[in-house]
Amino acid sequence: MTPDDLQTIVEEITAEMAQEHRRGKVADYIPTLASVSPTQFGMTIIDHEGKCYTAGDADTPFSIQSITKVFTLTMALGAVGDTLWSRVGREPSGSPFNSIVQLESEQGIPRNPFINSGAIIVADVLLANYEPREALGEFIRFMQMVTGDESIMIDEKVAKCEHDTGFRNLALGNYMRAFENIHNPVEETLGTYFHFCALSMSCRQLAMAGRYLMCGGRRHPNTTDTIISRQRTRRILALMMMCGHYDGSGEFAYRVGLPGKSGVGGGILAVAPGIASIAVWSPGLNDQGNSQLGMNALERLVQRTGWSVFRVDR
Amino acid sequence: MTPDDLQTIVEEITAEMAQEHRRGKVADYIPTLASVSPTQFGMTIIDHEGKCYTAGDADTPFSIQSITKVFTLTMALGAVGDTLWSRVGREPSGSPFNSIVQLESEQGIPRNPFINSGAIIVADVLLANYEPREALGEFIRFMQMVTGDESIMIDEKVAKCEHDTGFRNLALGNYMRAFENIHNPVEETLGTYFHFCALSMSCRQLAMAGRYLMCGGRRHPNTTDTIISRQRTRRILALMMMCGHYDGSGEFAYRVGLPGKSGVGGGILAVAPGIASIAVWSPGLNDQGNSQLGMNALERLVQRTGWSVFRVDR
Amino acid sequence: MTPDDLQTIVEEITAEMAQEHRRGKVADYIPTLASVSPTQFGMTIIDHEGKCYTAGDADTPFSIQSITKVFTLTMALGAVGDTLWSRVGREPSGSPFNSIVQLESEQGIPRNPFINSGAIIVADVLLANYEPREALGEFIRFMQMVTGDESIMIDEKVAKCEHDTGFRNLALGNYMRAFENIHNPVEETLGTYFHFCALSMSCRQLAMAGRYLMCGGRRHPNTTDTIISRQRTRRILALMMMCGHYDGSGEFAYRVGLPGKSGVGGGILAVAPGIASIAVWSPGLNDQGNSQLGMNALERLVQRTGWSVFRVDR
Amino acid sequence: MTPDDLQTIVEEITAEMAQEHRRGKVADYIPTLASVSPTQFGMTIIDHEGKCYTAGDADTPFSIQSITKVFTLTMALGAVGDTLWSRVGREPSGSPFNSIVQLESEQGIPRNPFINSGAIIVADVLLANYEPREALGEFIRFMQMVTGDESIMIDEKVAKCEHDTGFRNLALGNYMRAFENIHNPVEETLGTYFHFCALSMSCRQLAMAGRYLMCGGRRHPNTTDTIISRQRTRRILALMMMCGHYDGSGEFAYRVGLPGKSGVGGGILAVAPGIASIAVWSPGLNDQGNSQLGMNALERLVQRTGWSVFRVDR
Repeated sequence: MTPDDLQTIVEEITAEMAQEHRRGKVADYIPTLASVSPTQFGMTIIDHEGKCYTAGDADTPFSIQSITKVFTLTMALGAVGDTLWSRVGREPSGSPFNSIVQLESEQGIPRNPFINSGAIIVADVLLANYEPREALGEFIRFMQMVTGDESIMIDEKVAKCEHDTGFRNLALGNYMRAFENIHNPVEETLGTYFHFCALSMSCRQLAMAGRYLMCGGRRHPNTTDTIISRQRTRRILALMMMCGHYDGSGEFAYRVGLPGKSGVGGGILAVAPGIASIAVWSPGLNDQGNSQLGMNALERLVQRTGWSVFRVDR
Repeated sequence: MTPDDLQTIVEEITAEMAQEHRRGKVADYIPTLASVSPTQFGMTIIDHEGKCYTAGDADTPFSIQSITKVFTLTMALGAVGDTLWSRVGREPSGSPFNSIVQLESEQGIPRNPFINSGAIIVADVLLANYEPREALGEFIRFMQMVTGDESIMIDEKVAKCEHDTGFRNLALGNYMRAFENIHNPVEETLGTYFHFCALSMSCRQLAMAGRYLMCGGRRHPNTTDTIISRQRTRRILALMMMCGHYDGSGEFAYRVGLPGKSGVGGGILAVAPGIASIAVWSPGLNDQGNSQLGMNALERLVQRTGWSVFRVDR
Repeated sequence: MTPDDLQTIVEEITAEMAQEHRRGKVADYIPTLASVSPTQFGMTIIDHEGKCYTAGDADTPFSIQSITKVFTLTMALGAVGDTLWSRVGREPSGSPFNSIVQLESEQGIPRNPFINSGAIIVADVLLANYEPREALGEFIRFMQMVTGDESIMIDEKVAKCEHDTGFRNLALGNYMRAFENIHNPVEETLGTYFHFCALSMSCRQLAMAGRYLMCGGRRHPNTTDTIISRQRTRRILALMMMCGHYDGSGEFAYRVGLPGKSGVGGGILAVAPGIASIAVWSPGLNDQGNSQLGMNALERLVQRTGWSVFRVDR
Repeated sequence: MTPDDLQTIVEEITAEMAQEHRRGKVADYIPTLASVSPTQFGMTIIDHEGKCYTAGDADTPFSIQSITKVFTLTMALGAVGDTLWSRVGREPSGSPFNSIVQLESEQGIPRNPFINSGAIIVADVLLANYEPREALGEFIRFMQMVTGDESIMIDEKVAKCEHDTGFRNLALGNYMRAFENIHNPVEETLGTYFHFCALSMSCRQLAMAGRYLMCGGRRHPNTTDTIISRQRTRRILALMMMCGHYDGSGEFAYRVGLPGKSGVGGGILAVAPGIASIAVWSPGLNDQGNSQLGMNALERLVQRTGWSVFRVDR
C-alpha cells in the first residue's frame, strides 16, 4: 500500500461517514459532552515510518475520556510493574463500563484496568508517591512526551463536570475503599481520575500518542528511545483487544480485529502493531458506549488495508 | 527461525514441562477423563510450509472436548452464515464455561459459541437439515478432511459418559429450549453435542486440523482449496482470542497473545496466523479449566519465537 | 362478627370484584391454562367452627398449580422431618418463581420450598420410598383426606401440558441433579411434580383443604385427629408468609397480612390462624404471577374483618 | 400466663443463655462495637398492661444500630405517607444487609427500608424539610416520646466511627444518588443515617420504645394517645416480619414467628401484637449479622409462651 493509497482511503472513509444516517447518541451524562455536535468525524493514521494521513475534523480537540486508561495503565506498570495485578484483574468483565455488581462477589478487585473501577485503581496507584497535583503534572508530561506536543491540556471544565455528576464513580471508589483496595482518600483518587479522563486531544494528537504502541514500546518510529519494553507493549495491546470496548469488545474484535480503546467522548485509538497508529472520532455512541461511526470507519479501514492482527496473506 | 531451531524449541519446552511440579488437576466430572495420567505432555507445531515439529506424547489420542467448538462453529457458519448470530452472541462472558446465570437475563441467548451453552446452540443449528446420525457423519468427514487423516474417530465411551453425567448441560439445553432458542428435541441436540465433544485426537492431528486457520481458510499450506473465506477465518480467530479460554481468556491473551481454544481434556489449539498451527496437551487443568502445562508451554513458545499477534519487530 | 356478617362480606367483595377493570393477565405458558376465562371470580371462607361462606364461582374447579406446594411440603415434613432442610432453604428468594440464578452460587440448594426449584426437591423427597404412581396415589389420598372430598382429581390434560412445555422446570431439575440434590431420575421427579401441580380444585375444596392450617394441625375444627403438630403448623404458616407469593410476598404481607400461597392458575389459599381458611380464585395474574383480583379481594376481607396476624385490638 | 410465670420465664432463659457456648462473633467493623464483651445478655418484656419483666444486663446501654430503622421508618411514613414507596420497595431482598448488587438492575430503588440502602433513603426523606441537626433533634424527641425516657442519647463516638469506616454505605449513597434517589448531599444524608444508627439504648428502653407497635399505634397500653394508625402499625409489623433480619428473616420467622428487627450491636426488638414488646441483647452475631443468643432466647420464649403470630390454640 502506497502513501497515496492510504491518504485516499482515509478521505474516502471520511466522505462515506458523512453520509451515514445512524450516527448513535452523544453521551449526555455530563453537560459539556452533551453539547458536542454529532455531525463531526475525524480520522488520523500514522504509519510505521511516522507519516501522517488525516481527514475530516482530525484537528478538533475532544475529550478522550476512557482512552486515557491506556496511558495511565502504561504509567502505572512503569511505576509498580506486575504488582499492579494484585489490585486489578486482566479479564473481560462481560458487564457495562460502570457496573458495580462484580465488585461485591470479587472482593473489591475490578476485572480489568479499562473499566471505570479498574482505572480508578490505576489512578490510586499513581498517587502512591505523589500528591494529586504532582500526579497530574506527571501525567501531562507523559502525554506531551508521547505525542511530542506541548499543547496537550486537561479541560478543567470537563473535569469539574465529571466531579459534579460522578456519583457512580464515587460509589465505585468508596466500595473498593471498603475492601481496602483504594489507599488514598477516595475524593483525591476520584478527583485525579476525573482529571485524567478530561484530557483534550485531537485525532492527530491521539494517533501520535499511540505511536509507542505501534512501535513495540519505542517512542516513535524514528527513535531508539523506549517508553516501555516490547513485552509490556504486547501485553497492553492484548488488554486493549480483550477489554478495550467494555461489553462491546467481542464485537470490535470480530468486526475490526485490532487492539483498541474507546472513550465516551466518541474517540477510539486503534493499533495495528508494527503498521499503524489510528485515531478516529465521532461523538455519537452505540448501545455499549462506543463511537458508532468510529467503529464503522475502522471496520472499513481494515477491510481495505487488511490490517487485522488475525490477517493471513494466503 | 530455521526448522532446526523450531524442533529444538519444541523439544526444550517438552523437557522443561516434564520438570514442572504444579501440573493442575485432571478433570474428574466424567470417569473416562478422570483416569488419564497427568504426567503426559505432548506438543506439535505445523509451520506455514506444512512442516511438522513434534515432541513428547504428541501421538497419544486424547478427548478434545471443547476444542471441537472451533470446528463446529466453522461448519455452522458454513451452513447458515451470519444468521447464526441471531441465536448466539460474540462477547466474552466473564463467567465460567458452564454458567447458566446470564441466560436468564439475556433471554436464552448465550454470550458466545465457545461456552457450553453457545456450543449447544451451534449443535442445534447443525441439526437443522440433518438427523443426528447424519450430522455426526458430516462432522467426522469435516474433521477427516481438515486433518487429512481418515482415522479420526469419536470415542463412544466418552460420549456415553458425557451423556450420563451431563446434567448441567441438560439444564442449559432445556433452559434455552424454554426461550425457544433450541429447535430440536433437547435430548437430540445434547446427544449430538456430547458426541462432538468426544472426538479423540492426538496433538499431531489437532495441529493438522488447525492448518486452515493458520492459512486464511485454505485447507493447508500447499493447496488452493479453501474451507472458508479469509474474512471468516479472521473472525473465527478473533472469537478464539476473545472467548477461547472461558474466564481465563484475558489471561491467555496477556501471557500468550495468540488465538486459541482449550478443552477440559487438557488440549489447546493455538494459531499464529500465517505462521503456525500449534497443539499442546497435558491433562492437568488450572482453576479456569484450561491446561496448566499447555498454557505454560505456549507462553514459553511465544517468548522464544515472538509469535504473538501483538508482536512488533521494532 | 356474626355468620350473617361474614356471608354478607363475601358476597359484597364478590360483587365488587365483578366491577374491577384491571383484572391481570391469564397465564399463557400452557395452553390449558391460557384458555380459562378471566371474568371468573370465586371465594370461600371456612370459619373456626367449620361453617362455610361462599360466593361467585366458588364451585368451579381450577388448576391449583403452586398452591399444591403447601400440601406436598406438609407431606414431605411428615415423611422426613427436619432433615428436609439440608436440601432446601427457608429464606425468601427475592427472585421470580422460576429463577435459576441463585442455584449456581448456592450449589443447587433452592432458597425455599415454595419456588419451583424448591418444590421439585420436595417432589424428589416424596419419591424416596415410592414409585411415581404410588407417590401420586399417596398425594391424592392426602388431599382427599384433608378436604374430606373423594372427588379431588389430577387433571391429566394439564399434567401433560406442563410436561410438554416445562423446559425451565426441566432445566431446574437437571441443574440440581448436577449438584446431586435430585436423587431420582430427573424425568420421574419432574413428572411427579407436574402431576402435583395439575390438581384441580374449587375454592370450596381448597378452603376445606386449608382447615388443618387454621386449626393448628387438626384435620378440621370438629375433630381431635391431627395431620401435623402445632409447631409444624406454625412453621408452615411462617413459610407461607415469607415465601408464599414469590417476589410479591412482601407486598402480600403488607397489604393482607396473612400467610398465603398463590398459584398461576389464579388461586390463593390464605389462613387466619385459629379463625378462618380462605380460598379465592380469579385467573388474571399480576406481574409477580399472583392473582390480581385474589389479592384485592383478600385485602378487602382483612380490612373489613381485621384478620391480619399483625392485628391488635387496641 | 401470670406475671409471676413471665418473670420466671425471663429469668430462666437468661440463666440458660449464660450456659451457651456458641455465642457468635461480635461485630468488628467499627472499633467501638468490637470492644463490647460477648458475655453479656439482657432481656426485657413489657406486657399488654405495661408491666415490665427483666433479667440479665437489661439496663446496660448498647448501640441499637439497625433497629433504629423501625423508628425512622415510622417517622418517614408520618412525614410523607405512602409516597415513600416510590423510593423504596417492600420486598425481602434475599441478599446481605449491605449488598449493592440489586441496586444496579433495579435503578437505585432499594428492596425495603430495613436494609442499609433502604434506610439511607428513609434518612434522606427525613431531611426533606430539616437541616441534619434539626432532623436529629426530631429523631431524639421521637425516641424520648415513645420510650417516655428523656435520657435517650446518640453515642457520638459511635457515630464518628461509623462515619470513618462507612465506605460501603457511602458507596450505596452515591450509587443511589446517581439514580437521583438521594435528594440531599450524600455526606449529609449519610451523616444523619450514621447518627440514627448510633443511638444507645438498654433492653428496658428498647422494649419501652416498642410499645406502640404492640398497642396498634397507641403510645403505650395506658393511654389513648396514638403515634400512628392501626393499619400503619400492622404494615410496619409486616415489614419487620418479612425483612427485619436481612437474609436471616426466613429463619427468624420459622423459629420465632414474631415480627422483629435486629441490629449489629446485638439487639433485637420483637413484637407480639397485642401481647408484648420484647427486647433482647447479646453482642455475638451469627453469619447473617443477627444476635446469636438473641434469636435463641426469643425462640425459647415463644416455645414457652406460644406467642407466635402463627399460633393456634386448637
